[in-house]
Amino acid sequence: MVSNTQIIFTKIPTTFPVAGEHMVVKKSEIDLDVEIPQGAILLKNLVLSVDPYMRTRMRDPNIPSYLPAFEINEVMPGHVVGQVFKTNNEKFAVGDIVYGLAGFAEYIVIPEPLTAYLDVHNEIGSSGLPITSYVGVLGMSGMTAYVGLLKYGKPVKGETLYVSAASGAVGQLVGQIGARLGLRVVGSAGSDEKVAYLKELGFDAAFNYKTVDIQQALGEHCPNGIDVYFENVGGKMLEAVIDHANKFARIVCCGMISQYNTQTPEPIHNLLKVIIKSLEMRGFIITNSMEMDEPFRRDVTEWVKSGDIKYREDTVKGIENVPEALIDMLRGKNFGKKAIFVADL
Amino acid sequence: MVSNTQIIFTKIPTTFPVAGEHMVVKKSEIDLDVEIPQGAILLKNLVLSVDPYMRTRMRDPNIPSYLPAFEINEVMPGHVVGQVFKTNNEKFAVGDIVYGLAGFAEYIVIPEPLTAYLDVHNEIGSSGLPITSYVGVLGMSGMTAYVGLLKYGKPVKGETLYVSAASGAVGQLVGQIGARLGLRVVGSAGSDEKVAYLKELGFDAAFNYKTVDIQQALGEHCPNGIDVYFENVGGKMLEAVIDHANKFARIVCCGMISQYNTQTPEPIHNLLKVIIKSLEMRGFIITNSMEMDEPFRRDVTEWVKSGDIKYREDTVKGIENVPEALIDMLRGKNFGKKAIFVADL
Repeated sequence: MVSNTQIIFTKIPTTFPVAGEHMVVKKSEIDLDVEIPQGAILLKNLVLSVDPYMRTRMRDPNIPSYLPAFEINEVMPGHVVGQVFKTNNEKFAVGDIVYGLAGFAEYIVIPEPLTAYLDVHNEIGSSGLPITSYVGVLGMSGMTAYVGLLKYGKPVKGETLYVSAASGAVGQLVGQIGARLGLRVVGSAGSDEKVAYLKELGFDAAFNYKTVDIQQALGEHCPNGIDVYFENVGGKMLEAVIDHANKFARIVCCGMISQYNTQTPEPIHNLLKVIIKSLEMRGFIITNSMEMDEPFRRDVTEWVKSGDIKYREDTVKGIENVPEALIDMLRGKNFGKKAIFVADL
Repeated sequence: MVSNTQIIFTKIPTTFPVAGEHMVVKKSEIDLDVEIPQGAILLKNLVLSVDPYMRTRMRDPNIPSYLPAFEINEVMPGHVVGQVFKTNNEKFAVGDIVYGLAGFAEYIVIPEPLTAYLDVHNEIGSSGLPITSYVGVLGMSGMTAYVGLLKYGKPVKGETLYVSAASGAVGQLVGQIGARLGLRVVGSAGSDEKVAYLKELGFDAAFNYKTVDIQQALGEHCPNGIDVYFENVGGKMLEAVIDHANKFARIVCCGMISQYNTQTPEPIHNLLKVIIKSLEMRGFIITNSMEMDEPFRRDVTEWVKSGDIKYREDTVKGIENVPEALIDMLRGKNFGKKAIFVADL
């Protein structure tokens, strides 16, 4: 028997989740010699991905959404990089490195059909890049940036791209891809330190949305208006962007983190401008764009290896830190991609 | 000199316009032998088109929009079918029938470059269809329906189409095109008489939004959810539709008439569902889709002539009735396309 710490989802939060109340760290043990069912694998997790969308799964299961609600008193599901410790499934060999949706525990048995959410990516072990990259810039976060901007943003050289939560897991890559395409790139973030980082990354302008008037800042930093908005925030930010959007602007709705921890969503009053300006607003979920997985991996791996793209991670060591890490991220206290380091290869 | 009644826009309304206050009927005279400038034409109007969008031009000129604000104390611009009475422009011959943007008066001199908004359509005189058709089902209203549904709605056989203001100038055609394409077509309107008419037109279901709970009605009449929403109304109606929209639904924003006559727009609280359901919301202005003018005229003329498409008009005789007609339409008191008959060919 070995120690096997698990993160258990225990209660549906109404506003911000609280560590120990809504998520609990459970110390348990696992017998690594245990028989696993036909089709299952026993996964040893290496890195856990802490993502804003997880909050949308902490809900009453009667409320439909694009992903099922978390089950109470079960291990919290999430994206991981892990290594196959034991296998009873021919898709996986012992030692394979996998990426995908699993559960937040040191060790976890993944039965069929849930193994379908995991893919073998042995290049993770040989690329020379940190494993954490593969839940961030080369994981779902990076692909969300790539697909959202290229497929739904339909950017044209010379246009203005505005990104909210721009120093986050998705935003920092969106801005840098935009700059590569010859867009004027403007970002906002929640601290002066993050704003300074955005300028380091090559954003043409950046502002701290907590210390300025957003309407005024958008007017100042987007003097030609906004052509593509990469939406991570929602609420008042979205309303301000609609005011500053150009004719035919594309609003790519990736997330609305400002609306996840409230029972009273901030209303939008200016949707008439969707008509007046012929705006296009498009929500998307990355799993519906898997046709772009290959070009994403090819392009972004090259850009990261060449140093053309920088990517800041905010990695915390120790699975027991998941609850605080997730809550910090929901409060904007992360600086870059939030991930949990669990074990070395 | 002959009598020349004009409709003058006199004041910017804050809520619903009032006849005599915001629009005035001015009796004047015109000398039909008058010299007209190089490039101009003298137009005799036959039919005037009364459209909801006109309300969006009754605004402070400092507020930008897709069309300029109406000028105070000038003849109110609008779409017309007219006949060229005199011409100093080689694009037009005396007797030509034209359609496009002109001004609401019995006779009006259209100088260059405004003549560019008028096109010769002599088929109007020879088609055997009533002239009023050419400001309605075969005019901008019809083209708005055709383009909005086909280009932006991207309908697929078997899907559910919901149309608000469905007995109006645009909605009745949207629904009938949808039915031709094999969609389940559901409409709403503001009276039981209009609802009965929608069923006559072949709508699969229809309801009076004033006498039912909209959320409940959408649940009942769209049991498989909504795939395409043709948005003419805005506000609470839009919010309800977002709740009932299916994954990947398209919300085609043509108009939001409920929001035109208020200083306090109805807020939308559920835009997070744009992400959750991967919705696409797209505003459009018909003048940006002129590439579809020819297929529109070909298809809809054929459908109207064959009787496959029915189209109800609400025509009022006499230019002096423009102010009341426009106000009635903004209040939903029209039944079908609102037009003003001015003169016979």
